[in-house]
Amino acid sequence: MPRVRAIYRLHSDACAVEARARAIANEQSIEMPLAAVDDDFVRSQIVGRVEGISEKSDHLYEVEISLAAETVGHDAGQLMNMLYGNTSLQKDVVLHDVELPAALVAHFAGPRHGLHGLRTRVGASARALTCSPLKPQGVVAARLAELAQRFAAGGIDYVKDDHGLADQSYSTFADRIEAVTAALSAIGRTHGRETPYVPSVSGDLDTMRRQVRLAASHDVRAVMLAPMIAGVSNFHCLVRENPELAFFAHPALAGAARINPALLFGKLFRLFGADAVIFPNYGGRFGYSQETCLAIATAALEERDNLRPCAPVPAGGMSVGRVREMLDFYGADAMLLIGGALLEARDLTQAAAGFVAEVRQYPYNRKRTENGRQRTGG
Amino acid sequence: MPRVRAIYRLHSDACAVEARARAIANEQSIEMPLAAVDDDFVRSQIVGRVEGISEKSDHLYEVEISLAAETVGHDAGQLMNMLYGNTSLQKDVVLHDVELPAALVAHFAGPRHGLHGLRTRVGASARALTCSPLKPQGVVAARLAELAQRFAAGGIDYVKDDHGLADQSYSTFADRIEAVTAALSAIGRTHGRETPYVPSVSGDLDTMRRQVRLAASHDVRAVMLAPMIAGVSNFHCLVRENPELAFFAHPALAGAARINPALLFGKLFRLFGADAVIFPNYGGRFGYSQETCLAIATAALEERDNLRPCAPVPAGGMSVGRVREMLDFYGADAMLLIGGALLEARDLTQAAAGFVAEVRQYPYNRKRTENGRQRTGG
Repeated sequence: MPRVRAIYRLHSDACAVEARARAIANEQSIEMPLAAVDDDFVRSQIVGRVEGISEKSDHLYEVEISLAAETVGHDAGQLMNMLYGNTSLQKDVVLHDVELPAALVAHFAGPRHGLHGLRTRVGASARALTCSPLKPQGVVAARLAELAQRFAAGGIDYVKDDHGLADQSYSTFADRIEAVTAALSAIGRTHGRETPYVPSVSGDLDTMRRQVRLAASHDVRAVMLAPMIAGVSNFHCLVRENPELAFFAHPALAGAARINPALLFGKLFRLFGADAVIFPNYGGRFGYSQETCLAIATAALEERDNLRPCAPVPAGGMSVGRVREMLDFYGADAMLLIGGALLEARDLTQAAAGFVAEVRQYPYNRKRTENGRQRTGG
Repeated sequence: MPRVRAIYRLHSDACAVEARARAIANEQSIEMPLAAVDDDFVRSQIVGRVEGISEKSDHLYEVEISLAAETVGHDAGQLMNMLYGNTSLQKDVVLHDVELPAALVAHFAGPRHGLHGLRTRVGASARALTCSPLKPQGVVAARLAELAQRFAAGGIDYVKDDHGLADQSYSTFADRIEAVTAALSAIGRTHGRETPYVPSVSGDLDTMRRQVRLAASHDVRAVMLAPMIAGVSNFHCLVRENPELAFFAHPALAGAARINPALLFGKLFRLFGADAVIFPNYGGRFGYSQETCLAIATAALEERDNLRPCAPVPAGGMSVGRVREMLDFYGADAMLLIGGALLEARDLTQAAAGFVAEVRQYPYNRKRTENGRQRTGG
């Protein structure tokens, strides 16, 4: 019977680690004393198994536990529940990695478009993509539309909503869709180049569905949402229902649960269907390390289970001055997201054009042979 | 214009704390350089304001930030996003407490039944309630039904699903509802006392809705779900749609250290409509302190904003031997949840009856005048 393999990291004394591993295996499966289980199927299949324990560094242990895939069924939320539901309540256990049986991966199916689909849509071949956000919240839709138009005039590939934009009274979702798509169409006709808009959808599943329908009726073909706020089951449901839509996953509220970011953003969000995944870049407003960011990008891109690669979107306080360094680091297979730094410029269109030029002029081929990340070279 | 007040805790040097507070206020509102904002409404209303900074202990600061309530709109998920979306990605900032304007509280509306409704349903007046879970996952529905019957025969007030029970092939949700409700009806006729069943609903909103409908068609009047897996917007949507149903909130995936548990379980889950909230008791399988547990129970019960009190349900490795101590600690206004320890007993009905007797025989009145928690005395 197929097993889900979950790897946890925890600090422990050597003499206690086996008991702690067994406790996690129990907590994430039957959640009751093993001695009280008299059912053979449960004892042989359902009880979590400790498959391995290894010390990674002083008192830091990696514990591998396998769970029956049948306990997950076919629901993304139940997968999260089985992997980390109760154990998230332990102060010191991190969910580090997960391996799923092929049938479960095939069910979730991953991105429908992925990095290559996102490239094709904007006519980019082997370069990194550019993205800029509409902000701040609080301004009227017409103002956001104006910003969108300037980003597009500067040649930005994707214009997305800031994740704070929801369905607020001063700028409703409907107003925003109407105004921004009209503005982008107008500039598209002028420049002979379409700039896709990626609105942020939020709320319960019904509300997100209504927003997706409204957006689609304005020829929007990509949306952003925060899977940890929406609930991963609802995220996956929208992905399944809208094969023509590309999905950008936003990391909001994802930090609270102490799941390894490479696993959550790179692997699980991709598995559930993210075509692009936004995450805090190193050296910006968040404390992510280079190592963490590289692990996220690698997990999002690497060949695995026949899933399409998901575009890594490093963000959070980036500037045009850092584009070269970021491309040295991420290579061509990334979408760079710069917002605030462009909005500070006196001439937004010019600033956006400068960002775009940096990304287009970068010598990808040279770098791709130098930095050893050819595996993911697009 | 009404403001949401959010309190964060972080470790900082004295000289850096003001800048960090301003950074959080910016991150949770406009998320861009203030200098680049030229809109008066945004500058005066939308930008987060640092309302206060105080040192709680050595280098631990409490920072109060206010946000425009309009940025939240009326969506529970957007409230979480505004309070903690990006800041959850910071390694060291805890969301500690929240105060909402009256109109927003009135919109979310809190529990429909609450502790008193749950008491009335089982004919309990001023005592604590009892609850036991059906487990382990992996056994067939008939076996779970047998357990339910024994718990009911022992006099347990509420029989709930273990949170691992979803819609698995070996025991589907539909089979479980059918078998458990039939079993509980049969024993109810024998004993002349109804034992409510609280099935666990999971999946995307559509799936949860189907499960709720199926359960209701079998006269089930309470369900359990995990708001952090389902997404709080979907949780609140189900609460609104089903005023006759009581909701038990499960803490799965809610994380240990980053959102203050008293805020998340006691205040926010209650606000979104939890009639009972399950949380890890001190001294069990989880590391929660007495102080944390008391803060959760207090937040769930205290008179606030005209919301009904929500039943605190301490759980996680509890035993009958601890009932007296738990009632000394929590008083009458709690629902005690004991599972594994009863299932270990040779005679489950007898063990359940022992649990029930301990809870019923406890001298609540004496204790209520002694332990100083009369405010919440039911």
